[in-house]
Amino acid sequence: MSAGAKGADQLLADFTARKPVALARAISIVENHRPGFDRLLAALHGRTGRARRIGITGPPGAGKSTIATQLIRAFRSRDLTVGVIAVDPTSTFTGGALLGDRIRMESVALDSGVYIRSLATRGALGGLTATTREVADVLDAYGFDRILIETVGVGQSELEVARTADSCVVVLVPESGDAIQTLKAGLMEIADVFVVNKADRPGADRLKMELKVMLQLRSSRLRGSRDAARGLHSAGLADSHALGASAGDAPADVASRWLPPVLTTVAAEGTGIPDVLGALDSHHEYLSDSGQLAERRRARLRARVADVVDLKVRSRLWGDAGTEAWVDTQLAALESGETTPFDVADALLSRSARLLTGEADDLHR
Amino acid sequence: MSAGAKGADQLLADFTARKPVALARAISIVENHRPGFDRLLAALHGRTGRARRIGITGPPGAGKSTIATQLIRAFRSRDLTVGVIAVDPTSTFTGGALLGDRIRMESVALDSGVYIRSLATRGALGGLTATTREVADVLDAYGFDRILIETVGVGQSELEVARTADSCVVVLVPESGDAIQTLKAGLMEIADVFVVNKADRPGADRLKMELKVMLQLRSSRLRGSRDAARGLHSAGLADSHALGASAGDAPADVASRWLPPVLTTVAAEGTGIPDVLGALDSHHEYLSDSGQLAERRRARLRARVADVVDLKVRSRLWGDAGTEAWVDTQLAALESGETTPFDVADALLSRSARLLTGEADDLHR
Repeated sequence: MSAGAKGADQLLADFTARKPVALARAISIVENHRPGFDRLLAALHGRTGRARRIGITGPPGAGKSTIATQLIRAFRSRDLTVGVIAVDPTSTFTGGALLGDRIRMESVALDSGVYIRSLATRGALGGLTATTREVADVLDAYGFDRILIETVGVGQSELEVARTADSCVVVLVPESGDAIQTLKAGLMEIADVFVVNKADRPGADRLKMELKVMLQLRSSRLRGSRDAARGLHSAGLADSHALGASAGDAPADVASRWLPPVLTTVAAEGTGIPDVLGALDSHHEYLSDSGQLAERRRARLRARVADVVDLKVRSRLWGDAGTEAWVDTQLAALESGETTPFDVADALLSRSARLLTGEADDLHR
Repeated sequence: MSAGAKGADQLLADFTARKPVALARAISIVENHRPGFDRLLAALHGRTGRARRIGITGPPGAGKSTIATQLIRAFRSRDLTVGVIAVDPTSTFTGGALLGDRIRMESVALDSGVYIRSLATRGALGGLTATTREVADVLDAYGFDRILIETVGVGQSELEVARTADSCVVVLVPESGDAIQTLKAGLMEIADVFVVNKADRPGADRLKMELKVMLQLRSSRLRGSRDAARGLHSAGLADSHALGASAGDAPADVASRWLPPVLTTVAAEGTGIPDVLGALDSHHEYLSDSGQLAERRRARLRARVADVVDLKVRSRLWGDAGTEAWVDTQLAALESGETTPFDVADALLSRSARLLTGEADDLHR
């Protein structure tokens, strides 16, 4: 116990001294929820909130890694340090090369101002989104100026991951399909900046136009319902990231509507990258001026609390040997249909108050 | 309230009378966790446990839907009814046609003894695996003899879904890669039957041989450690589905080792399908004789209890207006770093005993 605490102190000291090996170890501890991960995250909490978090998402093959690499280069040329989280919720079969590996093959990976980390779902106790938030907090606390969060595709879990960022870049290519599909896949809701990559291919202009039309339609529909929505929207977890959800509360109401720009790039040649950087800066300025940056960060803190509550409930309840033993006493009645999982869950919760509230823990301390 | 209860009674009566419209409505209520879904599932619980649940998984393009269609035909020719759950955790972008749609295009879809349902993640409160278990329970209670649970790929969430079945068929093609990749992707652990589909293509024999060798190696390694494992393995949730995890407890120890057969098919032509059916029957017999069928079903009941506990904790805690309001009072201290999400979560749980145990609910009844 004291050896563990000493190791933790040393790790924290090395981390504070910005030793890369301490960063890698801290992330491993957090990613795999090794003993002490909670104390570590708690110790780092006060140092978070400085980095800009940028999500990059889009269908496979859209060129997200290429754009990420170009953004990293651009940030580095401004002397900004960059932490990259490459999130791949699929397995070896579906993905091909891991995202992180693609970026690692580029020259940026040799730069000490860049740190790249791949996250798979394997471990991810408490879910990939929670783990991504935690690892981003570690990178933030370490002092990176920008954190890029890249996903391999646009499945549900990947959209959730992208939502943890301050600004989200959605990368499409003419082959991705039309704007309607983008809408259906939920990308309209999370995009702060659209990038049509491989814009030298046929169909790029049409996709760009379609996206612009859809975004305009969406924006005017939201504007129409804004007065109705004002005051109705609590700053709930679910809605807090949606465009304009907290428009009524924003200090600068005029600036409180962001229309995502639709940019074109040929990322492999670097074409259009300065525009993406410019759009990210504008979006950050907009977030800051409208009060939404603070709101997104508050939403992230609320979500962190909910993550930790989930984790504590599970570990307190199922970590107690008495819980499984008690459920096993109910199996016969469950099998015969005499009782139901709902009744058993009710009974379990009502007998577990001391476990859930942590009172039982306190006795052991 | 009484209107809702009356509607629920009518639905249950129609469901019991096996009206397809009641089945569809029951699944929608359960899938989307609409009001009353818990009472409905509780009412159906006593009718579950009769259907054989068969998972079909494998990488995209392996021909899972074709094999599913052929299995449905074969079951129907034996006069067995079939419910199909097509699980697609990805969005419109990544998948192409939805699994369910592919099967629907076949003639089997017009047969009243077949019911096909696609599940996406959108809704899936409480997670895709929990929702799949719930929808399978509804199909089971309705009286289907076989339930096929098909996934679109082999990501982590899809493997979890496949684990909810009694028997799991893993479909590969020569192009899927070698047996090592299968092992890495976690497919060795969940496969009860391997099918090498498109077996008329080059590489099929080699893949089959590789799989057999890997399975033999794995089996003899497990056999070696069986004596050590005997008595050590509690019937924990995580391990209960693993090959031989409960070998020591099985009534017929001789039969307690199942070596997954490696079959070859050309599903598009129906070649090899009878072998797959035969293997499924053998596996069911093995599960039944060895006591593992009962054990898998107990594990499923335990998992259902855990699902419901998760759900109740979330809805009781976050469904209470006081919770979010209280968290909001902590935001300033969280932002300044004065307190951490861990401290706030601790304090929240310790003040929420009456919510968590359901005592607060009881007052409102």
